[in-house]
Order: sequence, then C-alpha cells, then structure tokens
Amino acid sequence: MFNKILVANRGEIAIRVMRAARELGIKTVAVYSDADKEATHVKYADEAFPIGPAPSNLSYLHIPNIINAAVQTGAEAIHPGYGFLSENHHFAAVCQTWGIKFIGPPADAIEKMGIKAQARQMMMEAGVPVVPGTAGTVENIDEAKRIAEEIGYPVMVKASFGGGGRGIRVVESPNELEEALERASREAKSAFGQGDVYIEKYLRQPRHIEIQVLADNYGHVVTLGERESSLQRRRQKVLEEAPSVAMTPELRAKMSEAAVRAAQAVNYTSAGTLEFLLDENGHFYFMEMNTRVQVEHACTEMITGIDIVKEQIRVAAGLPLSITQDDVELRGWAIECRINAEDPANQFRPSPGKVTVWQEPGGPWVRVDSGAEPGYQVQPFYDSLLAKIVTWGRTRDEAIERMRRALSEFHIEGVKTTLDLHKQLMNDEEFCAGRIHTNFLAERIKGA
Amino acid sequence: MFNKILVANRGEIAIRVMRAARELGIKTVAVYSDADKEATHVKYADEAFPIGPAPSNLSYLHIPNIINAAVQTGAEAIHPGYGFLSENHHFAAVCQTWGIKFIGPPADAIEKMGIKAQARQMMMEAGVPVVPGTAGTVENIDEAKRIAEEIGYPVMVKASFGGGGRGIRVVESPNELEEALERASREAKSAFGQGDVYIEKYLRQPRHIEIQVLADNYGHVVTLGERESSLQRRRQKVLEEAPSVAMTPELRAKMSEAAVRAAQAVNYTSAGTLEFLLDENGHFYFMEMNTRVQVEHACTEMITGIDIVKEQIRVAAGLPLSITQDDVELRGWAIECRINAEDPANQFRPSPGKVTVWQEPGGPWVRVDSGAEPGYQVQPFYDSLLAKIVTWGRTRDEAIERMRRALSEFHIEGVKTTLDLHKQLMNDEEFCAGRIHTNFLAERIKGA
Repeated sequence: MFNKILVANRGEIAIRVMRAARELGIKTVAVYSDADKEATHVKYADEAFPIGPAPSNLSYLHIPNIINAAVQTGAEAIHPGYGFLSENHHFAAVCQTWGIKFIGPPADAIEKMGIKAQARQMMMEAGVPVVPGTAGTVENIDEAKRIAEEIGYPVMVKASFGGGGRGIRVVESPNELEEALERASREAKSAFGQGDVYIEKYLRQPRHIEIQVLADNYGHVVTLGERESSLQRRRQKVLEEAPSVAMTPELRAKMSEAAVRAAQAVNYTSAGTLEFLLDENGHFYFMEMNTRVQVEHACTEMITGIDIVKEQIRVAAGLPLSITQDDVELRGWAIECRINAEDPANQFRPSPGKVTVWQEPGGPWVRVDSGAEPGYQVQPFYDSLLAKIVTWGRTRDEAIERMRRALSEFHIEGVKTTLDLHKQLMNDEEFCAGRIHTNFLAERIKGA
Repeated sequence: MFNKILVANRGEIAIRVMRAARELGIKTVAVYSDADKEATHVKYADEAFPIGPAPSNLSYLHIPNIINAAVQTGAEAIHPGYGFLSENHHFAAVCQTWGIKFIGPPADAIEKMGIKAQARQMMMEAGVPVVPGTAGTVENIDEAKRIAEEIGYPVMVKASFGGGGRGIRVVESPNELEEALERASREAKSAFGQGDVYIEKYLRQPRHIEIQVLADNYGHVVTLGERESSLQRRRQKVLEEAPSVAMTPELRAKMSEAAVRAAQAVNYTSAGTLEFLLDENGHFYFMEMNTRVQVEHACTEMITGIDIVKEQIRVAAGLPLSITQDDVELRGWAIECRINAEDPANQFRPSPGKVTVWQEPGGPWVRVDSGAEPGYQVQPFYDSLLAKIVTWGRTRDEAIERMRRALSEFHIEGVKTTLDLHKQLMNDEEFCAGRIHTNFLAERIKGA
C-alpha cells in the first residue's frame, strides 16, 4: 500500500479522498492555488504544496506544477478527484513516465472513452445499445421513412450543423415526416448555411440512469447497481439517488451486464460510471462513460456499504478489489442533494464570497461531504459545489423525510445557495412520487 | 400519528428524539432548566418551555413542571429519553392520568423490571438464565460445597453485608473453599460486624452483552441483535459496538430468544434492552432490563438500518412496528465512542465550562449525535456526555479505521474531553483484537 498520496483537486472531493487515505493509514498531500491558501482541503491534509495562480489552467490544470508537487513531497500516487485532470489521458500517461501511480483507469481507457464518436462505435461493437439513428445524413424521404420505421416513432429530425435547438423537429408519425424534413432542412440552411439533416430516435422524457463499475488488474469487474441522475439544470446534475424508481431487477441485470461489457471492451480498471438514457418503455441507450469517481458516488456507497474511493486506491496499489459481485447487496435508498454557492433568484449565477455561518446537519443516516467551514472563501474561479448532503432510508420516502430534516438543519450565511431549491424539491409531489426525467427541473422550477 | 410531542430531556438524546419527530412531521417541544436556556436542544425544538432551576430534581426530574409544560404547549406525548424520568414508573402513570402518551413501555413493565430482586425472580420463572448462586446465606461447609459443585468453580464467597471489595474471596477449587469461607466470614465480621456469607458463580472476565428489543401493542416482539458494552469505567459505559466479536449465530439466537421471553414476561412494549453477562464458556446470565432507549442504540441502528426512536414513537401512537423479525438483517460493524466533558488526567472528573471550539467529524459512515455547538456551556449539574461518534464499517477493522479518522477530525476546545482516551483505545492492540471484558479499562487505562 502507498505511504503518501497527493490529491490533485480541491473542495469536498479532495477531502473525501483524503478521508479514505487517512483511514487506510496513508499520508496526504494537498495542492492549492494562490486563492486556496486558506481553503478547507488544505487544512485537512497532512501537508500542502502550492501549484500556482488562481485560474485553473495555471494551477489545478497545470500538469508540470502538479507533477512537481508530487515529486517534491515524495507522493507515490496521485488521485485526481473529478473534473480538472481526472479525465485527461495525457496527465495519466505523464504520471506513469514519472513513476507516479495515477489513481484511476489506464490512460488508454480514458482516451478511448473520451472521444465520444469512437466510444459510441466501440460500444456498438461490444453489444451495448446506443441511441439508434442514422450515422450520416438522410438523402431523401424514402430513406428517411425506412430509417424512422426501423427505429420507431417518435423520431427527431436534426440538422447536421444545428445548434441552440434550431433545425430540430420531433416527428410523431410517418405522415408528418416529409414536412418535418423540409422544414428542418430549410431552417438549418437559413440559419447555418447547410441543409443536411439526420434522424435519431426521440426520447421524450428520458431518465438518466448510470451504472457504477469497479474493476481491478486481475480481471474482476463488479457493478454496484444504478444511480438515477435525471434531475439536472442545463445538463448539470442537481440531485441524484440510488437505486432508481424506474428499475426492476431484470432491467438492472441487463444494464449491469452491458456496463461490464463496456468496461471490459476498454480493459477498464478503477472506478467508472456508464451513463445511459432510459426511455419510458424500459429501453436503455449508452451515452458516455465517466472514467473517474463521480460526485454522486456517495449514493451508491450508502446503499452498498462499499467505499468506492478506497477501492480505487487499492486497485492503483496493485491489490485486487476487496469485494466480489456476491458481496454487493443493495439496501434501502440514498438521495444526494448538491448544495452549490449559486443564487436561485438570479438564474443560478455563482455566488462567491465569504461564508460567515456554516452549520452542517448531522445525526442518524445523514452524511455530509463538504469542502467549506465558517470563514471559508467561495472563489469565483472554481465549481460552485460547496457540500453534498446524502441521506439514507429504508425506503425512498424515509430518505426524503431525512433529507427534509437535514436541509432544515443546514445553516449557511454569507453566500447564496441552492438549499431552498432542494427544500422545494423535497416537497414536490411529482418528485416524491418518483415521476422524474431529464426535463423535470426545466419544466417545474423557476429559473432552472 | 401525533402532531406535537414534548421531549423531557436535554443534550444529545433530546436532539436525537426531535430529529426522529421532525422526520415524521411531528412538532417538538423542548423543556429547559434555568441553566439550559441557551442550550443546543432548546434551539433545535419548534418551541421550548422552562421547567425550573438548574438542579435536576427541581426541573428535569420535577414531574409537575414537566406535565405542566406538556399541558401548556398542547403536546400529546412525552418522550423521556434516557436517564432522568425515563425509568420512573410513577411518571409513566402520571402521564396516563393526564391523557398524555408516555413514549415508552407500560408503567407496570417499568416497575416490574425496576425492582431488581423481583426481576431476577421473574426471569428465572420465564426460563431466562440469571447468575447462579445461593438465594440466602450458606450455613456450613457441606452446604457450601454442594452449592459450589452445583454452579461450578470458580465461585465467589461474598459477605452478605459486604462492600468495597471486602469480605470477598474467589475460590478456584473445592480444597480452597473451607479456608475462603472462614476468611471471608472473619473479614466481614470485623469490618461489618456480621459474618454471614453466600456463594455466587464467579465470572472471571465477563463480557457485557445486551439484546435490543422492540415490541408493539399487537403482540409483535422483534430483536435487533446484540451490542457489546464491555468497555466501562466504574460501571459507566465508555465505548460500545455491534455486533460483538464474542457472538456466534447460535448464541445470538439463544440470547435473542431469552430476550423475547423476558419482554413477554412483563408484556413489554416500545424499545428495551436486556443486559446479560457472558462468560468465557459462552454462558450468559440476565443482569437487568433497561426499559428505555439506551445511549448506545445508535450502534444497532447503523447495522440494521432500523430507526429505534421512530419505532418508539410509532408504538406509542398505537401503530404496529414497521418491521418484522424477517426484516432484521445485521450488516457490517458499528462502534460508538462517548465523548464526555471529563478530564482523563484528573481521574475523569467532570470538566464544565464554555465550549470555545466545536468542530465535528463528518464524511462517509461517520454519525455524530451531539448536544453541543460552539459557545455551548457545559453545566456542572448534568451528565457529562457531549457527543457520540458512531462509525460503521463492513468489518470491525474498517469501523475502527473510520473511528480513528473521525476522532482525528473532532476539535473541541474550552473543556477537557475523553477524545484522547478513545484515540488510545483505537490503537490498543488488545482492543483491536477484540479481547475485551468488563475489567479491561481498569486494567489498561491509567486513571480509569
């Protein structure tokens, strides 16, 4: 096992990783930008090393400075957290050349999954379903009709060079197809100077379902069930839960099987997440793989009892996973609310400033992973996530009751936060009934 | 379900109960003595009512003032927590006459278990094993030999009117018995003026094992496995865990069965705990029943996922338990460290004063139930428990690793605490190996 690791991140995930390291008896090195000298994650670490000015590209994304910090402090491995360099295959490769273990998948697997078109192709070859559609453009109405029939209505006619929602038509039945093709093409031509269109299956109110995978260097691939991350604001996840109300044991088995095939196709190791869209008929489609630990990994930890970050560290140290598929048993329900320094009254704009009051919830089945404290300075340079509240209950209802209680206990002053948004969600009838999808927040929450 | 309940307690347990109530959508009333006007539990409640001067007998133990608070605030039920009035059968009865539900067992069951000699008799009749021994005194060596043979060596010869460890002899074999009888009798006579002695089974290094019981008004009695509370300082528990390293599935089944018989013998309802001594040969003996929620209930909650306080409230409201025995599945390991305001360097004397720094641990699988905050005034009038840290792990080793980490994160200034004692324990080889018993702390920790 390692003696010392460096965490190339900040905020709550840096502390989350350092907690796992501390439990394993591993010393930790924090890195910090000039703006983060007094940050909470710096105080938590056993030692800390400066890596440059506040803008990320000069510090947290600046590979030479991070490698230098590891070399100077004698760290044997680097955990990248999420964001920043976590999915940078070049960084993973550089670590290797310096003899530093990258706590994550092989550089090659990151790269393969990083190029989305290539990943889609590989997944199809591995027998993992992707959103059906034409590869290229459609030439005429007959071809369009044939493809639409094949993938089933509703379909989407999309301009190849579209954007911002223009040049898109949803088609419910064959008799609407010709007009939609013409209109989409005309709109695209006038807007983008190019009238080519293609056809893709339209998922009306898809759910975002993801499968957590762990894999080691000895051929073991284990899945830890699903998370649902349908509640998003402009493609940013806001609330996650595990398991998903949309899941059945059969579907879970199928999706987990697909996830294992996907991981194996790129010789994956460490923790990773297969993201799928799930339609109303129980069909699922590969979107992408996150080749890192995710923000919402805590939900899975709460229902499985398995420490995902510790497993990452084990695997990087050359140890096998500490668990087999038989050890994975889902218990109860977990919900995670992301508390961001954002102003819901002002289109969720970031709300930097000094945290004057910071009082976290506690007590039974409430977990808080945070990167702030009283006096903490919320910087304008970085992601606005301040804390994650994760509650567990024997049922989804109980997890919601606990979240309501936990939210009521969280006192933050000095910056605006998304606490109230989550309070609103916990009392939203549709949310409480589990009727959620990826357009849910846009439809129901003002400004979201 | 109730609309409003009053919590007749203070500190962490008052907040623990109010958290359960809040999750159930029940309004809460705190009560407070003059000294507790600014206490954390008062701030947590939806409303608060004063009940008199600081000394407990004038406030938290003063039944008329507490009943008055309930009547004035319209509380429909009272949760007594632990300590104070929780095992006062008279109080339970008074609540009933005022039409206020007592959230606990029937007054009659409290009374029966409260008179220890009577409880011992009832348990024997119910087929629950008690520590074997003579009921009265032994008259001569022949009788002594017969009894000792019956209960098996080693035995203890004890002066009927002994105390402070005098007039006690441990006898390992029959040939030592006569001399021990004479010496104990002589010593007792000179010390207490009375030479009568009796014989009891000697448990060399017993473990303290307790079984958690839940029961409702519909004949359901459910057991939630055991806790081990062997680590005690002068009969005060210091650290508890669940399950126990000494347990086997067979022994657990036997002890649980005995616990059910014990509860049924007094028509028990609500949460209760059967305390047993377990000897090195796997024999267990009833000590007493705690007819209330215990400090260490959180350990059981962490390994079962069942909210014991919510079940108490359900049962008091006339609802059946929300779980059956089949729903009870033990998972992983939980350890609880009691953080008291005591000075380990000064024979663990209470350390009242103002808490200037109070920073609780957090993150994965760390639960903190506390009754303090920055600025909190530790009063000299009450129990010194400030907080409980409960960590969960897939194994005992993992729970210990997490506890080490959690203890390292807890920063308290202004009062002396037992944090360091627990840090020492978490690095004690014998503790980590699970070789603990009720004399463990006295033997190994200076001043304990």
